[in-house]
Amino acid sequence: MKLLEDRIRTEGTVKNGVILKVDSFLNHQMDAELFRAMAKEWKRRFADAGVNKILTIEASGIGLACIAAEEFGCRAVFAKKIAGNNMDTDVYSTKIMSFTKGKVFDVVISKRFLTPEDRVLILDDFLANGCALQGLMDLVKQSGATLVGCGIAIEKGFQEGGKRIREEGVRLESLAIIDSMEGGNLVFREEA
Amino acid sequence: MKLLEDRIRTEGTVKNGVILKVDSFLNHQMDAELFRAMAKEWKRRFADAGVNKILTIEASGIGLACIAAEEFGCRAVFAKKIAGNNMDTDVYSTKIMSFTKGKVFDVVISKRFLTPEDRVLILDDFLANGCALQGLMDLVKQSGATLVGCGIAIEKGFQEGGKRIREEGVRLESLAIIDSMEGGNLVFREEA
Repeated sequence: MKLLEDRIRTEGTVKNGVILKVDSFLNHQMDAELFRAMAKEWKRRFADAGVNKILTIEASGIGLACIAAEEFGCRAVFAKKIAGNNMDTDVYSTKIMSFTKGKVFDVVISKRFLTPEDRVLILDDFLANGCALQGLMDLVKQSGATLVGCGIAIEKGFQEGGKRIREEGVRLESLAIIDSMEGGNLVFREEA
Repeated sequence: MKLLEDRIRTEGTVKNGVILKVDSFLNHQMDAELFRAMAKEWKRRFADAGVNKILTIEASGIGLACIAAEEFGCRAVFAKKIAGNNMDTDVYSTKIMSFTKGKVFDVVISKRFLTPEDRVLILDDFLANGCALQGLMDLVKQSGATLVGCGIAIEKGFQEGGKRIREEGVRLESLAIIDSMEGGNLVFREEA
């Protein structure tokens, strides 16, 4: 998606050769106008999929999920990383390794919000090793809901997550795929 | 705001006499259509305030902030509870006690996203003891930005947070104020 790629080129910075910082518009400060354009693009790509539930994980995915929920005319739900004391005990649960934070999170979602009637589109801001997506897919599987596909803002195409998930037959729509950022030089994959 | 009060009556449940669960539409599953109506109401109330930045805290405030950012035509930014290893070191920082989670969080925001030019509307889903709001107000103060006011979805009027913040002279607009939920019976404060 050219709009997103242009924004990454303009505002993104590569740190230590491996970290792409896009916190001025995606995952700390958020440009809701850009999110709207991204949501419309996911809606275009998944127009025929009968999506009736958006699933994401806290925190950075929530803004995207909320805006996309308006486009798809459905509710969004975010999986929680830590169970607070007013969290349901009746939850689906999985474990997700976060390399950014260097630890394993227990991730939960109330059973009330993921049911066999749901046709779920998973959305998230980043895809690198794929741990978060695999965890969310596990929650969908536990619930008996139908996984329609996954939408990602920025996929690091030089890490293995996207490849592995596509090989599982999951429909994965990343709006920008970065195949290399060696020397701070961003190379985007051509859209199919 | 009647629409929100009605939704709380319909879908909210009181747990152990003190916890109001609204996780089917506000802070776990999210009804973006309702968020849109709430954002329009905040925009109406703060129409003359020159808001050019929305500030919230992860995670439950993010959806509201994102939708509201579209209404106000500005960017939103969320304060982060834990500094990941790709977080800026150049941050404003404060401590916030979470009674729900039973611990104190370090909360940070990059200095790049809160500046003296910003006229900040703080948004959050809940106001009870006011710790989160006080922390966010502290970040605004550190930055030299102007605090325009605070918008809250649900204020627990029987706890002291709202009263204290209004006494400080802060403009605080809560869309639903619950003055009592004894015996699970919700009593809303009349709008002024």
